[in-house]
Amino acid sequence: MDTEECIFCKIVTGSIPAEKIYEDDNVIAFLDIAPISDGHTLVIPKRHFNKFHECPSELTSKIFSKLGVIAQAVSDAMKCDGYNVLCNNGIAAGQLVEHVHFHIIPRNESDGIFNSWPSYSYPEGKAGKIAELIRKKM
Amino acid sequence: MDTEECIFCKIVTGSIPAEKIYEDDNVIAFLDIAPISDGHTLVIPKRHFNKFHECPSELTSKIFSKLGVIAQAVSDAMKCDGYNVLCNNGIAAGQLVEHVHFHIIPRNESDGIFNSWPSYSYPEGKAGKIAELIRKKM
Repeated sequence: MDTEECIFCKIVTGSIPAEKIYEDDNVIAFLDIAPISDGHTLVIPKRHFNKFHECPSELTSKIFSKLGVIAQAVSDAMKCDGYNVLCNNGIAAGQLVEHVHFHIIPRNESDGIFNSWPSYSYPEGKAGKIAELIRKKM
Repeated sequence: MDTEECIFCKIVTGSIPAEKIYEDDNVIAFLDIAPISDGHTLVIPKRHFNKFHECPSELTSKIFSKLGVIAQAVSDAMKCDGYNVLCNNGIAAGQLVEHVHFHIIPRNESDGIFNSWPSYSYPEGKAGKIAELIRKKM
C-alpha cells in the first residue's frame, strides 16, 4: 500500500483525527475507533512499515521501550484484570491496516474475548523437525 | 510466583528440556509444547518478570530487537500466510505461565484461530473521556 493511502500515516500527519494517548519522534498511540474492549489502544511507529519483521530492530526497540509504559497506563486507567499485547501480521492473521500496529487490549474475567485457544500436542519427533527448520532460517 | 517454581525459568537453566530456536544473554526462544499451530514459538526474557509492563524498558528493547528476526524465521520455515505476536498479561487475558512470554503464532487463511473479533463503536463522547483517563496515567 502506498503510504499516501494509509489511514495510520494520515493519523500520524494529523489529516485524520484520533484520540491520542502518547506521541514522540518515533511512536504514536491512540484509541482504536473499533475497540473490542473499552480503552483498546493502538501503538504504531510513525514510519510506514507493513509488517513487524520489516521494522528495523532499532525502531522496534524504540517502540517497545514505550509500549510497556503505555500498557501500564491503559491498564491502570481502565482498572482491568489483564491485557493482551497483539500484533497481527498479514490478512490471514487479522491485519486490517497495512501499517504495523500493536493492540493493547484491556481484559476482564469472563469477557469472552479470544476464548478459543485450540492447542494440541505434536506427535513424537515432529517438534524437533520443526525447530530444526526454523533454526536453519535464523 | 517464586522463580524456583517457574517452568520457564527451568527452561532457561536447562533443567526442563525445550526445542530451542534461539538463545543469547538476555533472550531465549523455543517451541510451545502445546501449540495452536505448527511452529508456534515462545520468546522470553531469561530474567523472571511476571508481566510485560514489569520488564525494564532496556530489557524489553533487547527482546524486541530479536523478536522480528525470530518471527521472520518462523514465518519462512513454516511458509505461513501471516503470524500473530501476542503477549497475554494476567489470567483474565489468557496468561498461563507467570513469566512474561511472547507467542509467535503462524497463521494460514481460514485456519479458524482467533476468528472472533467482537468490535463495536464508542457512543458519542466516550472515546474522548477514556483517552483522557489514560493520558492522566502516563
